[in-house]
Parts: sequence; C-alpha cells; structure tokens
Amino acid sequence: MATVVVPPVTPSPAEDADALLKAFQGWGTDEQAVIAVLAHRDATQRKQIRLAYEENYNENLIQRLQSELSGDLEARVLQIFINTPQELKLVKPKLVKYRAMYHWVLDPVERQAVIANAATKCIHEDYAVIVEIACTNSSSELLAVKRTYHVLYKCSLEEDVAARATGNLRSLLLALVSTYRYGGDEVNDALAKSEAKILRETVTNGETDHGELIRIVGTRSRAQLNATFNWFRDERGTSITRATKALQHGADPTGYSHALRTAVRCISDANKYFVKVLRNAMHKSGTDEDSLTRVIVLHAEKDLKGIKDAFQKRTSVALEKAIGNDTSGDYKSFLMALLGSDI
Amino acid sequence: MATVVVPPVTPSPAEDADALLKAFQGWGTDEQAVIAVLAHRDATQRKQIRLAYEENYNENLIQRLQSELSGDLEARVLQIFINTPQELKLVKPKLVKYRAMYHWVLDPVERQAVIANAATKCIHEDYAVIVEIACTNSSSELLAVKRTYHVLYKCSLEEDVAARATGNLRSLLLALVSTYRYGGDEVNDALAKSEAKILRETVTNGETDHGELIRIVGTRSRAQLNATFNWFRDERGTSITRATKALQHGADPTGYSHALRTAVRCISDANKYFVKVLRNAMHKSGTDEDSLTRVIVLHAEKDLKGIKDAFQKRTSVALEKAIGNDTSGDYKSFLMALLGSDI
Repeated sequence: MATVVVPPVTPSPAEDADALLKAFQGWGTDEQAVIAVLAHRDATQRKQIRLAYEENYNENLIQRLQSELSGDLEARVLQIFINTPQELKLVKPKLVKYRAMYHWVLDPVERQAVIANAATKCIHEDYAVIVEIACTNSSSELLAVKRTYHVLYKCSLEEDVAARATGNLRSLLLALVSTYRYGGDEVNDALAKSEAKILRETVTNGETDHGELIRIVGTRSRAQLNATFNWFRDERGTSITRATKALQHGADPTGYSHALRTAVRCISDANKYFVKVLRNAMHKSGTDEDSLTRVIVLHAEKDLKGIKDAFQKRTSVALEKAIGNDTSGDYKSFLMALLGSDI
Repeated sequence: MATVVVPPVTPSPAEDADALLKAFQGWGTDEQAVIAVLAHRDATQRKQIRLAYEENYNENLIQRLQSELSGDLEARVLQIFINTPQELKLVKPKLVKYRAMYHWVLDPVERQAVIANAATKCIHEDYAVIVEIACTNSSSELLAVKRTYHVLYKCSLEEDVAARATGNLRSLLLALVSTYRYGGDEVNDALAKSEAKILRETVTNGETDHGELIRIVGTRSRAQLNATFNWFRDERGTSITRATKALQHGADPTGYSHALRTAVRCISDANKYFVKVLRNAMHKSGTDEDSLTRVIVLHAEKDLKGIKDAFQKRTSVALEKAIGNDTSGDYKSFLMALLGSDI
C-alpha cells in the first residue's frame, strides 16, 4: 500500500504547473512550494503536470527541476565531469538530496530505470540496488522497467549489467535481471527438497562453483524458492539468510556473496529486508541518505505502508519519527510528505 | 512474408467446424479434408474455428485432432508411455507427421512454446530449436512465447532450460532465452571493435573460459552484434560463422560449440541459416522430417517467403519442388498447402 497522500480536490495540472513556475522564479527556488505540489500528486497527475508545464512554458520540467534543485553550482559542475566511480563517490553526498526530488518527478517505472542505470555504473558497490529492483518487482513490473531502459539508454539493462560485473556476481545479477520468472503459486515439493539439498551442499561445503545455486536462485519462481528455503531451514536447522551470511566472511572483492544474500532476503521477505536497509541507513554516524531516499522514493507509491508497519513492529518506533530525528530541512519535509506525515 | 494462402471468401467458423467434424466421422480421418480447411485459414480464423467447434460439439478441437491424426494406435500408446529422451527418440519418426498438424492448429505463439518445451526435454540434442526461437524472434515476440509458456507449463522457459542444460551450454542458452534485447539500430562502433577483439581472442586461442563471449552474444542487440561480427571479419579475414565451426572439432559433449555457432548464424542471417537447415534435412538418407516440419510450420505464417527466396537463390531449385521430391502422401499435401503451392 502506498503512503503518499493526495488531497481529495487538487488544482488542475495547468495550475500546478503555474505554481511550479512561480516557485522557480526569483532568487533561489521555493523548495517548500515545489514539495507542496509534487509530493502530493499521484503518478498520473505528475505526468499531466509535466505535459502542462511543457505545453505552457515550452520547457522540459524534469530538466528545469534538475537545474533548480541541484542548487549549488559546484555540485552541478562536478556532475558534468564525473567520469569514474571514484569521482562519483566523492560528489555523491552533495547530489543525493537533489536527486531525491528529481527521481520523484519521474514516473515510477522511469525512476527505477534511471536508478538501475546509475547502479550499473558502479556495480561492484551498488549491486544491491539492482538486486532489489530485480527481486522485489513482479515479472511484468520488471519488464516495464527494462522496456523503459531501452527507450532511455538505447541498450538493455542486461547488457549493461553483464558488461560491468564479473565472475559469479555477473552470473547472478544477469540471471536476476533477465529471467521472466513464473509468477504463479504452484510448488513442486519434491523439486524444492532436492534443490534445497543443492543449496545446503554449496553453502555448507564452501564450494567455489556456485553455478547450480545461481541457477536455482536466478530462475525459479518466488513460491518455489520459498518452499526450497523452507526445506533448507528444516534440514539444516538455520535459515538460508543466516547461512549465506557466513559466506561473506571470506575474501569477496566482487560483492557476490552479499548480492546473493540480498537476493535471498528480497525473495523471502522484502518488507523485512527494507526495514533492515532503513535501520542500517539511520544507524550509521551520518545518515546514509542514498539508501534512505531510495527506499522511500521507490516505494512511496507502492508498498511503503507495509514497510512502515514492519518497521514499527521490529523497532517499536514509527518510521516517520525515526526518519524525522535523522534528517532536517527541505529534505526532511520531502520525505515526510512521501511518508504521508506532513498533513 | 507469409506463404499461407487464405481464399478471398472463406466459410464461417461454424461451417469449417462442421466440415472438420464430418472429416473425423466414419472409418479413419479424412485427412485431405482436414488439410483443406486448416491449412488455408490464418491464425485468427483457426482460433474462431476452435471456439466454434468447442461451442457446437462440446469437445476440444486440439485434443480431438491429436487423437484423430495420431492415427495408428501404436504411436498413441507409445506417446503416453514415453519417459526418457531415448524412448522419445525411438518413437519420434512415427510421431513427427502427426505432430506437424497438431502444432499447426495451435496459435503461432502457443506453437513456439510447445515446441520449445519439447526441446527442453532433450536439450543436449535439441538445443538448436531453443536457439532458433530465442534468436530469430524479436524481444517482444520472444516475451509472448515466454508468457504463454508460463500459462501452459506453470513454470518459466528459463528455469526449464537452466535445469536441464549444463556448463557453457547452460550459460549460453540461459542468456539467449532470458535477455530482453534492445531492438534499436544504434551501434557503438568503438564497442563493436573492442568486443570483436574479445571474440577473436577467445575463438582463436582455444580458450576454455567463454564467459565474455557468451556475455556478448547473449546480451548485445542484433545491430550491435552484426557490427561486432563485421569487425571480426575485417580483422581476422574470415567470418565468425566459419571461425566458430573450427571450435566444433574438439570434444563437445554438451553441444555448446554448435549451439554457439547456431546463435551466431541466426543473428547474422536467419534466412540463410534456415536454408541450410532445410538443405540438411533433405540431404540426409531419409528426410529429417522433424527439422523440415519445424521450419515450415513455425515460419509459414511469418517469414517463409524470405526463406523460400533464399532457398531458390542458393540452390536454383524452388523449395516446393525440393520438398515435393522428398515427401509423400498427406504429409506432402500439408506442407505444400503451407508453402502456398497446392492451389
């Protein structure tokens, strides 16, 4: 369930476009005014606002927002000259807040394509973003993201992932982003049992050949995998999530083991996984705004209500309160609006 | 372009359904009558005939046809008891003619899903069928096949391919069937040149690690791959098709090298590839009816005209004539009808 609150009566798209133009004019952007409009409209309404803005003012709203909200010149100049993942990492903190708003204005599918594309550029650090998008969308949702990726980047998500990752990480990510998984509930229990055995042997014996494990996690349906994970727990006495954690202790320069664990967690209980991401983002000294923004912006219109409930249950603190304590200024206002807590 | 000829005026679906019922009644099936109806209707018309038949006679036309056309009892009994690929191979010659008609009555997408599923069952022999379906359909056509596969088999084509193939063959087939390739014409020439170098090194040096080669062939767009293949030819002085042929000389129990070469040929010139398949099917002592039927039935409604033209150009013999010399009886009539040569 979504958390975004759309007022029962909203201005027309042309009126909203006009309010945005006014917010952009004069010294600096009136960011509160921008939030008041955009954070309280659904995807269809935002699309109409984009169209009205372009028609009335002959200017692309996304580009205008990108330039308005990226505020300080330094960050913008840096963004233009970023060539390597290292450079991107340096300027990331400056860009993350502005990016949150820019991402929000995109439609939900476009937003995921843009975020996935950014992640392919430093894939050995940001592979978890790819895993999240591949494993928490349904097959048809993921397909919509891949179609939009074609339109935006004139290539496929698959080829970008495959060209930039290596070794087991590549095999895993490629299977996750490319498979059009079966979405039904049917489970073959005998198969689940035999494949749980393969997972157990691979994880327990510290085997380096993960081909079979990647095949299973990368291609089986969610229902089938959850049956397999249950057999794993029954026979091994511990969950696969816990068992794959042990894999991470060895040398793992590509991030494969962590990516594998992320996939397993997203498939077995996505809400629980996102609660952990949010908690990690806020537990760090200095909030990990990148992860925080990603989870809120990607899920506000979809299933953030479930993540909020799971967060409350796990921490006994409301997610709005936790985020409110950890953020400030326009950025805080924006996240609160997406969480449905500013009215 | 299709080759199937639909008369300008056709009977109503109910009249066609009635003609089929009459053909089924009495001693043995009037196979000529069945061909006269079904081989001269397009996919939409055949679907309407199926619906009319089911509505009027309360019986599934596909199942009725399957039982009528499988004619001799022996083949039917065998079909029921087939458990292993070896057994399937034994009874294949008996079944292939009946299957041609059964496959034809399916709608074009369903037909490909059924043929792909059969190929996964003896994948180390029939991998070429999977490669053809993956590499000669557009991304959205392949997706339609995969969606129908979900409906028919309650699982994904990807998981069946991955579970039944091994080693490099698995990696290649999985990438081919799962990637949602970019379909645009844009080519990055520098990338094509650098990836042609990777292909050259892998193919020339007899390397066993084909990870990069599989990534390139499995994920890049057709336009990009053709640019890469052109660079390969320019710098190596021979085509990649010819170069990959040399790979097949070594031990290759899984069929990987042949599957790779098939993929390269389907991507670079599908018509030329199918002409070769047809010629091989007819050059053998005893026609390879399985391949012959597959090419005709899968392409009659789509691009068989192009294959016919390429065949004539390559062999100076009309495809109808070549097939006519090699087949007989109802099977011949049926293929001739699909080739548009029986009127």
